[in-house]
Amino acid sequence: VDDFTAAKIAIVGTGAIGGFYGAMLARAGRDVHFLCRGDYAHAREHGLAVTRVDAADFTLPEARVYPDSRDIGESGLVIIATKATANAELPAILTPLVGPATTLLTLQNGMGNVEFLERHFPDNPILGGLCFVCVNRTAPGVFENSIPGGGTVVIGAHRHAGEADAGAAARLFSGAEVKAKASASLDEALWRKLCWNVPFNGLCIAAGGVSTAVVMESGTLRALARQLMEDVRAGAAAHGHAIEDGFLQKQFEATDGMGPYRPSSLIDYEAGRPVEVEAIFGEPLRRGQAQGALMPRLETLYYLLKAICPAP
Amino acid sequence: VDDFTAAKIAIVGTGAIGGFYGAMLARAGRDVHFLCRGDYAHAREHGLAVTRVDAADFTLPEARVYPDSRDIGESGLVIIATKATANAELPAILTPLVGPATTLLTLQNGMGNVEFLERHFPDNPILGGLCFVCVNRTAPGVFENSIPGGGTVVIGAHRHAGEADAGAAARLFSGAEVKAKASASLDEALWRKLCWNVPFNGLCIAAGGVSTAVVMESGTLRALARQLMEDVRAGAAAHGHAIEDGFLQKQFEATDGMGPYRPSSLIDYEAGRPVEVEAIFGEPLRRGQAQGALMPRLETLYYLLKAICPAP
Repeated sequence: VDDFTAAKIAIVGTGAIGGFYGAMLARAGRDVHFLCRGDYAHAREHGLAVTRVDAADFTLPEARVYPDSRDIGESGLVIIATKATANAELPAILTPLVGPATTLLTLQNGMGNVEFLERHFPDNPILGGLCFVCVNRTAPGVFENSIPGGGTVVIGAHRHAGEADAGAAARLFSGAEVKAKASASLDEALWRKLCWNVPFNGLCIAAGGVSTAVVMESGTLRALARQLMEDVRAGAAAHGHAIEDGFLQKQFEATDGMGPYRPSSLIDYEAGRPVEVEAIFGEPLRRGQAQGALMPRLETLYYLLKAICPAP
Repeated sequence: VDDFTAAKIAIVGTGAIGGFYGAMLARAGRDVHFLCRGDYAHAREHGLAVTRVDAADFTLPEARVYPDSRDIGESGLVIIATKATANAELPAILTPLVGPATTLLTLQNGMGNVEFLERHFPDNPILGGLCFVCVNRTAPGVFENSIPGGGTVVIGAHRHAGEADAGAAARLFSGAEVKAKASASLDEALWRKLCWNVPFNGLCIAAGGVSTAVVMESGTLRALARQLMEDVRAGAAAHGHAIEDGFLQKQFEATDGMGPYRPSSLIDYEAGRPVEVEAIFGEPLRRGQAQGALMPRLETLYYLLKAICPAP
């Protein structure tokens, strides 16, 4: 396993996450090809641009963008950054990109994505990457990284891929000025990531369409955010992963630094787009409950979100 | 204690509940005086009207309505049917109505109302009445009773009043073609009433502004309604009241009969008026938790409602 430095890299989904990380990789000289559907015409003409809160902005006027994955063809590393709500469309999109030596890396939110990929590509190494970052697509082809330090990507291996692959993928990102590290347990990393996504993606919608700052500044919503983290922790514990108090505390500190951030789920909700309710809320609830964990607040939030968010 | 048949009766708040029950009492020949502020001019000219789903409609063209409680004066029975969110205004409104021999009966939703009255009128008998009914104010001075059979009023005594007073008040209603009964425990009756109000008033708002029929027809919202009832039952149990499975089941059967009913809290919420979040959700949560009950779903719902409903 090399570190994918020389690999042909396909970015599937040039939204906030795919656009930002793909642009960072391309800027570092990697061979990056963007599948870019909605913004294709704009990106073809103007390229892609990244704005950063504490580093220089940059543009990639010649970014290689494509409207169809068949125009990209077989790649060494396929990075998936579409919404989990659109997974049903993924196999047809991925098939032209995936050959026997292709590694798949999903940067999608929530649980169930690596298993979904495994069902369709059982012979390929599959990695999951958790993006602890604040990125928004602020205009066609423009991606804004609004968290000081640029966030971190944690990469772990699903069954068929080994730790070496996760380490190589982490080095690929590190080599492009993105903080990244490999995790020995993708499952644990997913549960940890949900300690943020469940309370903040959830409450920012269910509390009436508010930013993270409103949750942080309300005594009761902040308390509820902590209780929801405890539910996620109970699910993680039932799966053998101990999450320490300090980690939960760090989530609050990191969120304080975000200001009035609007999580991607809230942006999707307000735009009338499907929200990743199953990946972020439903699937962890089911997995925790299957192991006997009590997660009553997560269950309440999940049922409410299911009711108020448009179905995919 | 007589049965209030000859008493001067003041109705404080001629909204859905006060208008409907006051009209039923006036129609039966009782000496009823309506404090009617918003709809005063209309009611003065046109009287009050009741429409019923399975009984004859009627009007009271000469209903005695007043814009100010000082025009009514001291009464034998004061029936309070204002929103609990407006309790701060109540003492000034009630003072002209209350003498040493006055009995107070609150028909307000939720917990804390009898204690509030007791603080301000510690020497008067205080009763609480729970209205298991569907009534809406459909136009100025027009009250629609949409539940077959007309519902039931359960009346219990707070500390200073005895069971005899509750029985007398129940007979007053029974004598006006309103099904009514006295309860030996107002506290238990309040917990039982909340088995409906918590899930249905709550979810109809928090699930995005939906009728009870939407909650009943959604597998997950219906399950959540049942779980919320279990939380209320846990609070009741912690206060020594055993609520049987059959009672919870009956709440679902009764709700099936309501069709697409919009609870009063939802109507208030959608009109931008304050919602009785503390009386229906906050106070029972605090009382249950004070006795060690676990009510995590009610707590989640309460915090969300607090965030999305306008403050009084």
